[in-house]
Amino acid sequence: MNKTNKVFIATSLDGYIADKDGKIDWLYSVPNPDNEDHGYVEFMEGIDALVMGRKTFETVLGFDIEWPYDKPVFVLSNKLKEIPDSHKEKAFLVNGLLTDILSQLHKMGHYHLYIDGGTTIQSFLKEDLIDEITISQIPLLLGGGFSLFGELSDKVEFELIRTKVFLNQITQSSYKRKR
Amino acid sequence: MNKTNKVFIATSLDGYIADKDGKIDWLYSVPNPDNEDHGYVEFMEGIDALVMGRKTFETVLGFDIEWPYDKPVFVLSNKLKEIPDSHKEKAFLVNGLLTDILSQLHKMGHYHLYIDGGTTIQSFLKEDLIDEITISQIPLLLGGGFSLFGELSDKVEFELIRTKVFLNQITQSSYKRKR
Repeated sequence: MNKTNKVFIATSLDGYIADKDGKIDWLYSVPNPDNEDHGYVEFMEGIDALVMGRKTFETVLGFDIEWPYDKPVFVLSNKLKEIPDSHKEKAFLVNGLLTDILSQLHKMGHYHLYIDGGTTIQSFLKEDLIDEITISQIPLLLGGGFSLFGELSDKVEFELIRTKVFLNQITQSSYKRKR
Repeated sequence: MNKTNKVFIATSLDGYIADKDGKIDWLYSVPNPDNEDHGYVEFMEGIDALVMGRKTFETVLGFDIEWPYDKPVFVLSNKLKEIPDSHKEKAFLVNGLLTDILSQLHKMGHYHLYIDGGTTIQSFLKEDLIDEITISQIPLLLGGGFSLFGELSDKVEFELIRTKVFLNQITQSSYKRKR
């Protein structure tokens, strides 16, 4: 069975996923009158489950919206003791080595995973466990914040799969790990 | 007279213009059998002069090639005492406030400037003196090195002008400062 770990994320031109105050409102700075989804719905159809860090999980919980995922969410955390009762059917705590967590998810039949959250993406990249990355670039410089990419010991080569432009302003490029 | 300060540069996916060893050989990692110029010749036709930092100047001098510019090059430096004799007709030392240097260049009839070199680009961006940026993204992560973008006190908004794909692998996007 083919297995893939995918990233689908937006950054500023200077590569940040959150600004200096941890805010992401600038993501919506390009007017989007028809609620263009930038390919998100199609992307979500192709995945079996999500893997995200505690911070991202708590951020999503904090949004004043309904739980946005219809696939199981695995929350990577050593700190969190348990998933709040309200979300016990939707989210599941995992910890340990990433490769062990992946084996566990694969055994459950979750082969195509959406890896989300800055720290989690960086951890997966450090172990060369990301197979596809889709980055939507918002045309502004934040000048500081939380970077999508972190330090790596070696170069990691990718292959461009496609580039699209959304709303005439947002460049979205998809890359596949060259192995 | 319309005046523009333009950047034309390539980065890794993680936003570096040089790797951890200061090297740029990864820029040529995408096979380019027909010497595709990525729009460089057309870009150069539109500029009157270059402004670069000392380090970039010395790097270009160090290349084992003929002097690559047919437009005057203004070298920003407080450290360099003089331009080597071999290049006295081609390159000129400037220093002081960027806005004063720009006035000086405009008086000489150089209205469209190619701002080059990491430190110099960052200095111009800090003072919001960049009008257009063209970034070619090479599909690899370096994991460290010299970043194109540095810290800024405020957000800086741009407008996407165009996106092109070169060699089926390199995404090149051009942005205009939104003023």
